[in-house]
Amino acid sequence: MKINKYVDISTLEREAKKDYIDRHSAFVHCEATAETGKKFKVKVQVGDEYMHPDVPDHYIAWVQLWNGEKMLAQTTFVEGAFANEPTNVEVDFYIVPKRKMKLTAMAFCTKHGLWQSDEKVVELA
Amino acid sequence: MKINKYVDISTLEREAKKDYIDRHSAFVHCEATAETGKKFKVKVQVGDEYMHPDVPDHYIAWVQLWNGEKMLAQTTFVEGAFANEPTNVEVDFYIVPKRKMKLTAMAFCTKHGLWQSDEKVVELA
Amino acid sequence: MKINKYVDISTLEREAKKDYIDRHSAFVHCEATAETGKKFKVKVQVGDEYMHPDVPDHYIAWVQLWNGEKMLAQTTFVEGAFANEPTNVEVDFYIVPKRKMKLTAMAFCTKHGLWQSDEKVVELA
Amino acid sequence: MKINKYVDISTLEREAKKDYIDRHSAFVHCEATAETGKKFKVKVQVGDEYMHPDVPDHYIAWVQLWNGEKMLAQTTFVEGAFANEPTNVEVDFYIVPKRKMKLTAMAFCTKHGLWQSDEKVVELA
Repeated sequence: MKINKYVDISTLEREAKKDYIDRHSAFVHCEATAETGKKFKVKVQVGDEYMHPDVPDHYIAWVQLWNGEKMLAQTTFVEGAFANEPTNVEVDFYIVPKRKMKLTAMAFCTKHGLWQSDEKVVELA
Repeated sequence: MKINKYVDISTLEREAKKDYIDRHSAFVHCEATAETGKKFKVKVQVGDEYMHPDVPDHYIAWVQLWNGEKMLAQTTFVEGAFANEPTNVEVDFYIVPKRKMKLTAMAFCTKHGLWQSDEKVVELA
Repeated sequence: MKINKYVDISTLEREAKKDYIDRHSAFVHCEATAETGKKFKVKVQVGDEYMHPDVPDHYIAWVQLWNGEKMLAQTTFVEGAFANEPTNVEVDFYIVPKRKMKLTAMAFCTKHGLWQSDEKVVELA
Repeated sequence: MKINKYVDISTLEREAKKDYIDRHSAFVHCEATAETGKKFKVKVQVGDEYMHPDVPDHYIAWVQLWNGEKMLAQTTFVEGAFANEPTNVEVDFYIVPKRKMKLTAMAFCTKHGLWQSDEKVVELA
């Protein structure tokens, strides 16, 4: 079992490859600093410029949010949650940080496996 | 196995009971109308005026979002995602509606079982 | 959102209804007594005489094992785990009892919702 | 985020390290050959000679079964499913193979992260 890592698609030539890579890539979107003990919003999103299908035999089945070696939360979707329309799957988690965080997102596509985002460091104010 | 249903806490007398009921109640927060085929934000929140603990042996382990008889998504938390601080667990889902929806949220507390929200009807524009 | 309860299909007349009810019914199969602090096998099975499809837009997406108000474990399947063949989904959990248990299973079908088994009482030796 | 891979503990010197590695290692136990379209039992187990704790802030929170790049099933546990006794977590999945399989198990410990088993090849008879 292999884990696909994030690739900057501007470095890729072929349109089909840009689309394939981008629509599966997991992203962590959040502020760069957080307050200790306060709720902190973290968006996990799959894909940026290209959308992923949501058809019964091919969809994003789950995303996970990790802080270092610790998984914080996992959201599992049932096919059809996006009306079988192509979409950029997104979930907003509201976590509470205790100390500096190193956030990573994982996404699982039922046809194209596991995708890991870049790490996003969050400093505490 | 029993499913606890939403109770309006203004109808309750005892402070301890208001706190117990409120901090476990699941809520669906979203607009009353949505556009067919467009992303639609739905917040599932646990508790309103009172917060729930996040300690290793007592926390909100998961929430689910249902449309009628169909589960759309489930978010599972690992203890510590909220720094062991009391909180109102919340997750924003971005679903895509096909037709009129009847949304319900479920929440599971590791000590106090399963809680079902009121149903929220969403008409399509 | 409605929870379908177990019905003994020998009480039903119509063949189509027997099939529908049976293939969605969740069952807890285990010994009637367990030893405190020792691993105890509990099979959760969906359907008995009739099998459920495993096709991309219609399959058993998850089963849960509960002891009273506490969920012990949940198994989530991805469509295709059963080669798209009709099957009786089953999972063996190995739990460790502390005291008398009241076990219930839940099963979720992506087209026909939530199904709750009868309760199985397990006494401790 | 790092994925810990299986290490044969007979190659390790220190007792504490053998214990740490073994009790987190995920294993796939099944027959070497299966019949196309027939139910096939696969046990996922965590640890072999050493047991892992099940305490509220330190336990095996989930295991996954993968076939190549496709996840087939995931079982999530709630703390206390093993009566807070050390145990070798195990789950029996009953999958149906369509063709030759390359099975891998993943296990997540709430304190020590993600562990990946060796790959087990299953030929079809």
